[in-house]
Amino acid sequence: MKNILLIFCVTGALMAQNLIEAAKKAGLEAIPADPAKVLALVEHPQNLLTPAKIELGKMLFFEPRLSKSGLISCATCHNLGLGGADGLSVAIGHGWTANPQGLNTPTVYNAALFTAQFWDGRSPHLADQAKGPMVAPPEMAVDPAVAVARMKSIPEYVNRFNEAFRGEKEPVTFDNIAKAIAAFESTLITPSRFDDFLNGNDRALSAAEKKGLRVFLDKGCTVCHNGVGLGGGSMQHFPAQGKFRYAHVGSFTGDIYGRVRVPSLRNVTKTAPYFHNGSTWSLEEAVMIMGEAQLTVFVTPDDAAQLAVFLKSLEGREPRIVYPQLPRSTAQTPKPEPYE
Amino acid sequence: MKNILLIFCVTGALMAQNLIEAAKKAGLEAIPADPAKVLALVEHPQNLLTPAKIELGKMLFFEPRLSKSGLISCATCHNLGLGGADGLSVAIGHGWTANPQGLNTPTVYNAALFTAQFWDGRSPHLADQAKGPMVAPPEMAVDPAVAVARMKSIPEYVNRFNEAFRGEKEPVTFDNIAKAIAAFESTLITPSRFDDFLNGNDRALSAAEKKGLRVFLDKGCTVCHNGVGLGGGSMQHFPAQGKFRYAHVGSFTGDIYGRVRVPSLRNVTKTAPYFHNGSTWSLEEAVMIMGEAQLTVFVTPDDAAQLAVFLKSLEGREPRIVYPQLPRSTAQTPKPEPYE
Repeated sequence: MKNILLIFCVTGALMAQNLIEAAKKAGLEAIPADPAKVLALVEHPQNLLTPAKIELGKMLFFEPRLSKSGLISCATCHNLGLGGADGLSVAIGHGWTANPQGLNTPTVYNAALFTAQFWDGRSPHLADQAKGPMVAPPEMAVDPAVAVARMKSIPEYVNRFNEAFRGEKEPVTFDNIAKAIAAFESTLITPSRFDDFLNGNDRALSAAEKKGLRVFLDKGCTVCHNGVGLGGGSMQHFPAQGKFRYAHVGSFTGDIYGRVRVPSLRNVTKTAPYFHNGSTWSLEEAVMIMGEAQLTVFVTPDDAAQLAVFLKSLEGREPRIVYPQLPRSTAQTPKPEPYE
Repeated sequence: MKNILLIFCVTGALMAQNLIEAAKKAGLEAIPADPAKVLALVEHPQNLLTPAKIELGKMLFFEPRLSKSGLISCATCHNLGLGGADGLSVAIGHGWTANPQGLNTPTVYNAALFTAQFWDGRSPHLADQAKGPMVAPPEMAVDPAVAVARMKSIPEYVNRFNEAFRGEKEPVTFDNIAKAIAAFESTLITPSRFDDFLNGNDRALSAAEKKGLRVFLDKGCTVCHNGVGLGGGSMQHFPAQGKFRYAHVGSFTGDIYGRVRVPSLRNVTKTAPYFHNGSTWSLEEAVMIMGEAQLTVFVTPDDAAQLAVFLKSLEGREPRIVYPQLPRSTAQTPKPEPYE
């Protein structure tokens, strides 16, 4: 009996080892277990990560005075308790305006691992990306000069910018607001059981999850969902057929091919609804649409269920975030403008 | 030299002792230093505080799926990083609707110490109050049945309600949602240096703050701002004159006298703009208006500056709040309705 069990174990371990090899060969990468290696992955050479900058960035991420109205912060739509997104089909911002291109809010979790930001991939990294939603009229709608003036009017913020951007002549700038936010966002990395598995712990995934991973590899999902982000970088063409709910994107990218950034699959179970237009609420349905539209393979409901089981193993361990206390405004602070 | 210093110290301590006595005689009370005594102050006999209920309440306080849109939570307007309020003149809610009565968002910090809730004082305690903003059309606008259905569709929430309201036949109810939120809010107590002073530490306030407290007592501010909340309970008539920016309230209270709840002064330096209609941004100006309008005493700019120095000592120590991770929706969860 003992011998039979031993054989099962050894066989299981060998099969798991094969699966890890196959996953790596298909381009999947783990979030490293070593924090120094994670830092190397997320730190941008023009935006070195220091505790002072990360803490300031956390405050700014939660800071509604970086919006025109004084009511919306990054955290409003990128809810860190809801997978870093908002759970809506289409983002809503200043004045209750829906995103005019019908776009869904992407997650901030693991965004530092992505090689392109925004659905149209126009931004190369987070310190560039973070400026967009602050100024976009249907999002936070702030005038950068007002955002900077508000920061400069609050002594605690001035001190914190001085500390975070030490040696700079003018530490309180719109660029540095975005850099600090990007620094905080770089800490929003969520290692999952899938990473533990790729890093060598063959018991980190259940038998059903391993089976789902095998389907994921066999169907060719890794053609687009690869790398440490399982997506989050490459741009992909969209089929022209109108039957897919997620189609019709040519206009928003300004790209004649209508290409859209491949979203990361990390925490995908937490970020319904799906696709850049938030048109599909069911993960199984989304997976089946992708198979047909992008890979021209047929994903059966049974395949889809198995894939969903695997995707659940990508639910990560979120960092513990203490809600920041924000310094009060002063008489000099430009007032909120919710109706202008 | 040593003797002179000693005399100063003894005289200072005696004077501080006199000031503490005078403050207590005027009706001011400290938040107790003993946590058991704080619990006795904030715990409602129909809503006993347990760790499971408080933790569930924290999740629900941050839960946007308790709003019709899925975007607004209690924490949106009661920003725990901004003194428990929103920093706007007039509250903004569902559909970017301003409060139709022009009311300012009151703080949730220390609200469990108040004996009446809402500006018109219509609610006796937090478990009753919390239901109001969830259903009010210009706030979270949710149908209670939808809020309950969303909770019931999420297994983790069902388990947490079962735990928090153990022994109840139907733990997931709209009343219990409000009770759990109230339980969390009961932990939002912010003891300040003023409390340390009243509790006997005569060095907790600076000489300037003690001078400000003396002005506070001499001018009669404690006629309304008394008790452990320094306000937060009694209803007060408003003068009929139109010259005060904060006046004209008769219509919203439904009370022919136009009475308004006296707000707490705790953390008042963090919760500009002031008055129930958020009409005044300067604390000194607010203090001068109050003196003339309510006490018919003249508060000079110098008095006002001294009062503001004292009021700063009411800035409390906020509890450390770890941002909650919220369980994901399921296929059964009623969808957000941002535009309905």
